[in-house]
Amino acid sequence: MFDTRRATEADAELIAEQRLKMFVEMGHPDDKGMQLMQRNFLPWVRERLADGRYVGWLVADGDRTVAGGGMWLMDFPPHWRDPQALRAYLLNFYVAPEARGQGLAYGLLKAALVEARGRNIRVVSLHASRSGQPLYERNGFEASNEMMLYLNGEAMR
Amino acid sequence: MFDTRRATEADAELIAEQRLKMFVEMGHPDDKGMQLMQRNFLPWVRERLADGRYVGWLVADGDRTVAGGGMWLMDFPPHWRDPQALRAYLLNFYVAPEARGQGLAYGLLKAALVEARGRNIRVVSLHASRSGQPLYERNGFEASNEMMLYLNGEAMR
Repeated sequence: MFDTRRATEADAELIAEQRLKMFVEMGHPDDKGMQLMQRNFLPWVRERLADGRYVGWLVADGDRTVAGGGMWLMDFPPHWRDPQALRAYLLNFYVAPEARGQGLAYGLLKAALVEARGRNIRVVSLHASRSGQPLYERNGFEASNEMMLYLNGEAMR
Repeated sequence: MFDTRRATEADAELIAEQRLKMFVEMGHPDDKGMQLMQRNFLPWVRERLADGRYVGWLVADGDRTVAGGGMWLMDFPPHWRDPQALRAYLLNFYVAPEARGQGLAYGLLKAALVEARGRNIRVVSLHASRSGQPLYERNGFEASNEMMLYLNGEAMR
């Protein structure tokens, strides 16, 4: 039996740990960049859990937290798709290896979309891992036209 | 001869007009959604021009403004790609039809990337129109793994 609850400010560490596991289990090295991310993500998410800009869900199996997901209510330039300066960005969707294949990610996604609708949000975005992509596609998400450039001191000046 | 200058708070209307033209010339109807966007975008950009979160460039040919581009310094969850909670998002890149084909979009992009580097920003993102995509590709931008869902009251609940 899994229990899902809403995250509070006291869960900031737990969410930061799930974020780290998510990236590491995706194959990204737990290097200096990852450690810096951790150090900075913790106060970032704690502040937003406190003021309501980060809404999180955590799933427990008995006394073990086995999954979680988050929705960040982000500022965004008013657009013809949604004139509100507000979008929902989904992040930190994580299911522990031993709890996979039981619909937990789907349940978290459903909770987030119900929450987004309840707030009258029109655009929900996320960056999908290869393993997460099929779930999002099944639920209506489409690849966007976003492009990114990573600056490292070597590229165009 | 084209002159490029930095936008100020007094340019909010001009930037909002360029944003509207950009979408309409891309083929999006100038409908109720677009008008609502305009109404809400103007105070959004004015506030951010004033506090420095929106950096804009405007190109004039004599006394006519013929092009412009903007960079929004956005909050973003600290990430292993960049542990700072800050990314640059490029928007409102617009060149009037009569001024196209003279490298103005490239000049605006270059100005934005110099500014981003100067601020030690590591990730620059944007949503590319079909016609803008080749310019961004030539300058190192790559398609991201972003996915989007548009909620309209009809989809998954």
